[in-house]
Amino acid sequence: MFTLPPFFFVLSLCAVACMSCPLTPLFSVLLTLLAASYTDSSDDETSPRDKQQKNSKGNGDFCIKNIKQADFGRREIEIAEQEMPALMALRKRAQGEKPLAGAKVVGCTHITAQTAVLMETLSALGAQCRWAACNIYSTQNEVAAALAEGGFSVFAWKGESEDDFWWCIDRCVNLEGWQPNMILDDGGDLTHWIYKKYPNMFKKIKGIVEESVTGVHRLYQLSKAGKLCVPAMNVNDSVTKQKFDNLYCCRESILDGLKRTTDVMFGGKQVVVCGYGEVGKGCCAALKAMGSIVYVTEIDPICALQACMDGFRLVKLSEVIRQVDIVITCTGNKNVVVREYLDRMKNGCIVCNMGHSNTEIDVASLRTPELTWERVRSQVDHVIWPDGKRIVLLAEGRLLNLSCSTVPTFVLSITATTQALALIELYNAPEGRYKQDVYLLPKKMDEYVASLHLPTFDAHLTELSDEQAKYLGLNKNGPFKPNYYR
Amino acid sequence: MFTLPPFFFVLSLCAVACMSCPLTPLFSVLLTLLAASYTDSSDDETSPRDKQQKNSKGNGDFCIKNIKQADFGRREIEIAEQEMPALMALRKRAQGEKPLAGAKVVGCTHITAQTAVLMETLSALGAQCRWAACNIYSTQNEVAAALAEGGFSVFAWKGESEDDFWWCIDRCVNLEGWQPNMILDDGGDLTHWIYKKYPNMFKKIKGIVEESVTGVHRLYQLSKAGKLCVPAMNVNDSVTKQKFDNLYCCRESILDGLKRTTDVMFGGKQVVVCGYGEVGKGCCAALKAMGSIVYVTEIDPICALQACMDGFRLVKLSEVIRQVDIVITCTGNKNVVVREYLDRMKNGCIVCNMGHSNTEIDVASLRTPELTWERVRSQVDHVIWPDGKRIVLLAEGRLLNLSCSTVPTFVLSITATTQALALIELYNAPEGRYKQDVYLLPKKMDEYVASLHLPTFDAHLTELSDEQAKYLGLNKNGPFKPNYYR
Amino acid sequence: MFTLPPFFFVLSLCAVACMSCPLTPLFSVLLTLLAASYTDSSDDETSPRDKQQKNSKGNGDFCIKNIKQADFGRREIEIAEQEMPALMALRKRAQGEKPLAGAKVVGCTHITAQTAVLMETLSALGAQCRWAACNIYSTQNEVAAALAEGGFSVFAWKGESEDDFWWCIDRCVNLEGWQPNMILDDGGDLTHWIYKKYPNMFKKIKGIVEESVTGVHRLYQLSKAGKLCVPAMNVNDSVTKQKFDNLYCCRESILDGLKRTTDVMFGGKQVVVCGYGEVGKGCCAALKAMGSIVYVTEIDPICALQACMDGFRLVKLSEVIRQVDIVITCTGNKNVVVREYLDRMKNGCIVCNMGHSNTEIDVASLRTPELTWERVRSQVDHVIWPDGKRIVLLAEGRLLNLSCSTVPTFVLSITATTQALALIELYNAPEGRYKQDVYLLPKKMDEYVASLHLPTFDAHLTELSDEQAKYLGLNKNGPFKPNYYR
Amino acid sequence: MFTLPPFFFVLSLCAVACMSCPLTPLFSVLLTLLAASYTDSSDDETSPRDKQQKNSKGNGDFCIKNIKQADFGRREIEIAEQEMPALMALRKRAQGEKPLAGAKVVGCTHITAQTAVLMETLSALGAQCRWAACNIYSTQNEVAAALAEGGFSVFAWKGESEDDFWWCIDRCVNLEGWQPNMILDDGGDLTHWIYKKYPNMFKKIKGIVEESVTGVHRLYQLSKAGKLCVPAMNVNDSVTKQKFDNLYCCRESILDGLKRTTDVMFGGKQVVVCGYGEVGKGCCAALKAMGSIVYVTEIDPICALQACMDGFRLVKLSEVIRQVDIVITCTGNKNVVVREYLDRMKNGCIVCNMGHSNTEIDVASLRTPELTWERVRSQVDHVIWPDGKRIVLLAEGRLLNLSCSTVPTFVLSITATTQALALIELYNAPEGRYKQDVYLLPKKMDEYVASLHLPTFDAHLTELSDEQAKYLGLNKNGPFKPNYYR
Repeated sequence: MFTLPPFFFVLSLCAVACMSCPLTPLFSVLLTLLAASYTDSSDDETSPRDKQQKNSKGNGDFCIKNIKQADFGRREIEIAEQEMPALMALRKRAQGEKPLAGAKVVGCTHITAQTAVLMETLSALGAQCRWAACNIYSTQNEVAAALAEGGFSVFAWKGESEDDFWWCIDRCVNLEGWQPNMILDDGGDLTHWIYKKYPNMFKKIKGIVEESVTGVHRLYQLSKAGKLCVPAMNVNDSVTKQKFDNLYCCRESILDGLKRTTDVMFGGKQVVVCGYGEVGKGCCAALKAMGSIVYVTEIDPICALQACMDGFRLVKLSEVIRQVDIVITCTGNKNVVVREYLDRMKNGCIVCNMGHSNTEIDVASLRTPELTWERVRSQVDHVIWPDGKRIVLLAEGRLLNLSCSTVPTFVLSITATTQALALIELYNAPEGRYKQDVYLLPKKMDEYVASLHLPTFDAHLTELSDEQAKYLGLNKNGPFKPNYYR
Repeated sequence: MFTLPPFFFVLSLCAVACMSCPLTPLFSVLLTLLAASYTDSSDDETSPRDKQQKNSKGNGDFCIKNIKQADFGRREIEIAEQEMPALMALRKRAQGEKPLAGAKVVGCTHITAQTAVLMETLSALGAQCRWAACNIYSTQNEVAAALAEGGFSVFAWKGESEDDFWWCIDRCVNLEGWQPNMILDDGGDLTHWIYKKYPNMFKKIKGIVEESVTGVHRLYQLSKAGKLCVPAMNVNDSVTKQKFDNLYCCRESILDGLKRTTDVMFGGKQVVVCGYGEVGKGCCAALKAMGSIVYVTEIDPICALQACMDGFRLVKLSEVIRQVDIVITCTGNKNVVVREYLDRMKNGCIVCNMGHSNTEIDVASLRTPELTWERVRSQVDHVIWPDGKRIVLLAEGRLLNLSCSTVPTFVLSITATTQALALIELYNAPEGRYKQDVYLLPKKMDEYVASLHLPTFDAHLTELSDEQAKYLGLNKNGPFKPNYYR
Repeated sequence: MFTLPPFFFVLSLCAVACMSCPLTPLFSVLLTLLAASYTDSSDDETSPRDKQQKNSKGNGDFCIKNIKQADFGRREIEIAEQEMPALMALRKRAQGEKPLAGAKVVGCTHITAQTAVLMETLSALGAQCRWAACNIYSTQNEVAAALAEGGFSVFAWKGESEDDFWWCIDRCVNLEGWQPNMILDDGGDLTHWIYKKYPNMFKKIKGIVEESVTGVHRLYQLSKAGKLCVPAMNVNDSVTKQKFDNLYCCRESILDGLKRTTDVMFGGKQVVVCGYGEVGKGCCAALKAMGSIVYVTEIDPICALQACMDGFRLVKLSEVIRQVDIVITCTGNKNVVVREYLDRMKNGCIVCNMGHSNTEIDVASLRTPELTWERVRSQVDHVIWPDGKRIVLLAEGRLLNLSCSTVPTFVLSITATTQALALIELYNAPEGRYKQDVYLLPKKMDEYVASLHLPTFDAHLTELSDEQAKYLGLNKNGPFKPNYYR
Repeated sequence: MFTLPPFFFVLSLCAVACMSCPLTPLFSVLLTLLAASYTDSSDDETSPRDKQQKNSKGNGDFCIKNIKQADFGRREIEIAEQEMPALMALRKRAQGEKPLAGAKVVGCTHITAQTAVLMETLSALGAQCRWAACNIYSTQNEVAAALAEGGFSVFAWKGESEDDFWWCIDRCVNLEGWQPNMILDDGGDLTHWIYKKYPNMFKKIKGIVEESVTGVHRLYQLSKAGKLCVPAMNVNDSVTKQKFDNLYCCRESILDGLKRTTDVMFGGKQVVVCGYGEVGKGCCAALKAMGSIVYVTEIDPICALQACMDGFRLVKLSEVIRQVDIVITCTGNKNVVVREYLDRMKNGCIVCNMGHSNTEIDVASLRTPELTWERVRSQVDHVIWPDGKRIVLLAEGRLLNLSCSTVPTFVLSITATTQALALIELYNAPEGRYKQDVYLLPKKMDEYVASLHLPTFDAHLTELSDEQAKYLGLNKNGPFKPNYYR
């Protein structure tokens, strides 16, 4: 018998939720920088689509940059495996029964070493996988090569054109004699393509697992419009994933992103952080610990009061804009740092965005004739005022943590495990448990993802005694907290 | 027109909630220690019930210890006013219309300087008040005297008998020609008394505001049983109150409580904190900052993972029980520290409870013949094993923060403001808005409480522009977060 | 053979030092508060000098308040023993040879449970002891009783007159047939008395161990004037003692002192700390950790730069005096907070001194007719301006940590161990090693004091291998750092 | 009149010191990583010595890689100027008199943008400069080009041979009609060369300023041997420089170095830091703040006790070696991490050195046949055991902060300012003030360096009043602390 706990098959029916709050921005897992660190033999200008593709076993059902890079990619995957203990644990458990036996998963995500560990785990659990990239730049060619060499049907390379992008997705989906019954999507493009081109496929599809804010938003719209024709699982808003993506990960990536781009010393620097949600909390805690003097702006009085109690002066941006050395946005809002503020910053002020998309800093307002832009390093621009004042703009106002920092594998492990469990749940759910709606991962499964990551820290959980469980009115195996607990 | 924002009169109907989670224990505002610091002329053994009661204006509708202490109590009230800015702001706003005009509030809470500020605020808002104590020990006699001198009908003294306790409550309620239309309760005893003795009174009562975990629990039981005959507001579980009562307050009171009782030096001490909810998080953060080495036990894998990411070794109690210098329980559970663990602690180990009631440490198991108890200071017992080993037990396992520390007035201010707003809301709500059910304070009002406390910190909130509010899909005046946001 | 390491007998001759820097203030071990917590049977108004003194064995060579309190005092001593591991370790080592055999120690220090542990250790090491109090208020009568009951010649009680004070000292020194050969002093009064009254005694005295800033200062003056006639050991300025007295102890006592006097909540409070020496560093670190917003003033650019790098805004007092909630002085300077600043503070501002003596706040300037003083609690005064503004002045500007907080026994343990080792060293030093000068405790002995305290923390020191010691050019047993290392 | 404060000309004569303590390792300013980020047109294989060298003004007295890179280098210099406020302030002060007028400085340091700011400052102060590189890899070719274009005689390029190295030094020194009168050295090679080849030059040389541990060590040896024939200033051991190089800089570079090489997540990781000197203190503080669980090893009981009080478990390496995720050495010692420990580490353990040279980790012991080395990224090796266990070794055991992190310009600014002031002091000192000995920078000048860096933080120093200065016995302008103050 497959040893996953029984809750996989007895899930609470009430786990319906509505989410996608724009105030708690998060980020998907684009690894521009990491990807950039790999050197491609850039002389090879032939499009992968025009090359003959064949791995060492003669299989050619894939389309990648260069199969010769497979060994290098395999090493990267092996490194990633060491920080993805939960998926490895799932693989072990699957040595008996295969909970995804018969599953035909079509996926569209960033193609990185971490995704590879996920795919190979799904395969170990019994699934067949076909995969495309959800971003034209983020594919690690070496990893794609290793996957292709390992027999996966991967269609992705770094630097796809938009036409390539859709071509790859189509190749995943449109294969004679093979029809997907599960979708794993990050951004909703794959789901969109099937809706548009192959709507009949949904008859056989048991469910969609969606990872991104944008994709989840699209699903809720479909659901509202009555057009969602299969159950969908929103894995973006699980507690564990949220805390890691926002609080814990940003606590580290704000330092990393600033250092790699500017080598700035944090000690003694005056910093204003706009927004004190989870991302802001992480940024503030890290900078305070490094000896920066941190100011916070907020619109929500509850978060504002938390900032006060945590030891940060709560100000309006205009009060400190002339004196700060670094401006960081984490609001999920738009036009938080506008030209008026940029005009008043002091020489050398660093401006960056940790929040959401590229809307928070009004970068467009800096594209005026009197200002000179100078690219001083990758991801670093000096914007120069007529009087010589320079503002240091990072990543052109896009997300610093995606553009100039790496996402720790451990965080990606949590996301990937959540995705795997969501697939298992939807695939094995008895008829009728899930309707044509968007579901949050059940609390108990969220707790299970967390528990799979505890061994990494050699952390030992305490178990409730029967008497205690009774006293608390809880099941000994959880869930331990109400659904709204964060 | 009274200038409270319009949301007072347009409350969301969906604010129904179910709470009273035993895993996030909190504490009401018993101030044993502070109270203890006042000196009573202890020679006066006459029961207040047998004394003639009369204030300087000849009014005698109260029953307290000693009216002569009024001046001293007035000074304590004035000091409290300075740290309760929100109530003072409400008073100012009430100089025009009186939102509680006509309200007849019967209250049963701890009678402290902070409560006095609340009562005088309710009075300024137009209400008539009659008040009893919710605890037989916690009344500050001087404050009760000052209230009586100021014309309030107060029935309370420190050291009531159980009979006195119910007699006082009855005197509040049972007055010819006066009938309450609002109840403010802390613990549910007042509500219970009226249910039992004067059920007809509920016909005129517009609502109950309840502060305590226990009282809220009783209300939900009444509601489930279909016996709740007026709307009730659970003010215990508002976000602001919870964060302050648990995280922020305990961060300070764990240090204060340990120092006042034991003078222990924190630096270098090994401490195990059982439970990593809000209370545990506060305790751990404070002790870590003071140079203690902190271990955590948890049953919930999500909280456990948070402990790991915050830098604490997650252990089972048995792994560290022999080596730690201090054991702190914050679980809300029972029998977390049992005799077996107490037997294995090292000489001098300090044991205390920050969590819930007096259940967490199995103190009863220490009442055995072979162990000697020695009271070494107020609230501090040495329990001595036959081999001479001593355990330092604080407050006999009751809540350390209530017994051996003070609750900052600022925290009480948040609670009191929440109570006042809940009274206003229920009293002014149009017929039908609230059913015979238990309600959470609407999110917007929670935000309003927070905003009233920001000026204390000279904190400046940022306002959304119209464009931004539209982008975020929010009202410019809030609420800014979903209801489940913590 | 007595097992103390050989360095006791081969001390470096170059350990001469000059200290007493007014910028790094420290505090001796007055325990006003702790002492105050003991209840005397205050009806007994007879002066101890007029009572018959006799312990249970018929010995009467002492003068204390009440021998009946001995049992209570003994318990306090036993509690103290548990946090003074180093002295207890010295006792064990002394079970063979007695390094203080023949020593006749006359002492003048605070008489507390911790001193008692020291005295009983000296006795176990072979010394005879006669003792007086160095402060007319600080004696713990119960402890004095326990010592007298145990056979020590103690002359001290709480509430001595000045005449009593000198009478007690004289009784210690002036005994027929007994002449001291070692002096242990705290403040220099005992030394001064012998200089004045019994100068011939110095012929037999082998050395003076002095603990206080003031006493050390006097010794250096004697030395400069060529009048010091025996070697003296300055134990005040040893590294270990300094770090504990200042940085580590103040980190805790600033919080404790403020809480016990004002119950203030630290979170969100704006605080200015004047001076960023060791004491200031401790205060700032603690308050920052508790969520206060901390500003620093400094005169020394190096300390100022450290404050910046540690994340504190460096300001002049005038810049922030209007906005802060708490003002703390730690400068060792005088008139740091003058009337001009007091006039500009906001209502409710708390003012206290952690630095040095009572000079830092110009309290005298507040004794003017237009200001009203109101004592609101022990050690807490409200100074009230004509417009009603109140300043909360703690301990009338004297040291907060001495007046309103306790000194952890562990810190006193370090001091007491240092004193014991200094006595042993001076007593056993071969003729000629020490001249008539003031010496610092040798670095190696300082390290030894530290090492004796490590077991408390279950801390395991690493030993150098021969090869490593050679590489570093160090002796494997230390000293490990140059003398100036802090 | 040149406006430097008068103390430049009245320096204490007693500032002799002996240093070079191997327990407080520091690092000079090698910028491998930064340097590595510049792309050279690597096709150009001609040695600079064989090229014709000429700048746009026809000057050819230099030898560099490629004069065409001057513009790019100039921009780097301009960026550096913005974080080197003290040198810029010195330039401004020099607009009147030139304190280095007539000085002929020959220098041998890393040639980076920061050095360029120093050189151009010396020039603005009146000096002529000739310069070589003190390291064959560290030269930023673009910066050298910009200096050459600006008229400086620079002899340096990245990738010199050893022969090139000495050839460059010789070209600096050996010029007909020009003889240096000041030496600025980093490592002692330049000084050594002049001693060996041109000993007569010392007749005209007024002094040597030496920056590195090694160079300072050589000077003390010369001095001991009576062979030092000019005064020398040890700028390595000034308080300000030490604190920044070690505590503040390492606090940031440990995080940066680990992230850039391994992308490791710090939260929850178990780390052992060997050595709790300034470097260790910085590393521990940073990692603790990021949520790591940190263990410390120490040999010195005083530092060990500090580690305890700061909240770290003090262990022997053997106790935790099996469980830790990261091992960091900061001891200044050799063979701290030996093969025995490496054998017992768990799979994936990261090992790096923040301390001293490359001695701390016994890397040689890993060069055995049964272990496989795999270079996985720049500066990152996997050492693989026969059972598949991998250790992640960073920078082959050399200094992580030099190899895998950048040194903030602000830290370099402090060093460079100290060097400039030392040059001014030695050059202007009246005959006889300095003997043929090694001197520490006078405390007052150290304070001056600190004060020049305060404006960067908008930090406002408080000045002593006359009365206060008198009370403290200090000069109002400093020095404020004794020489041994750290």
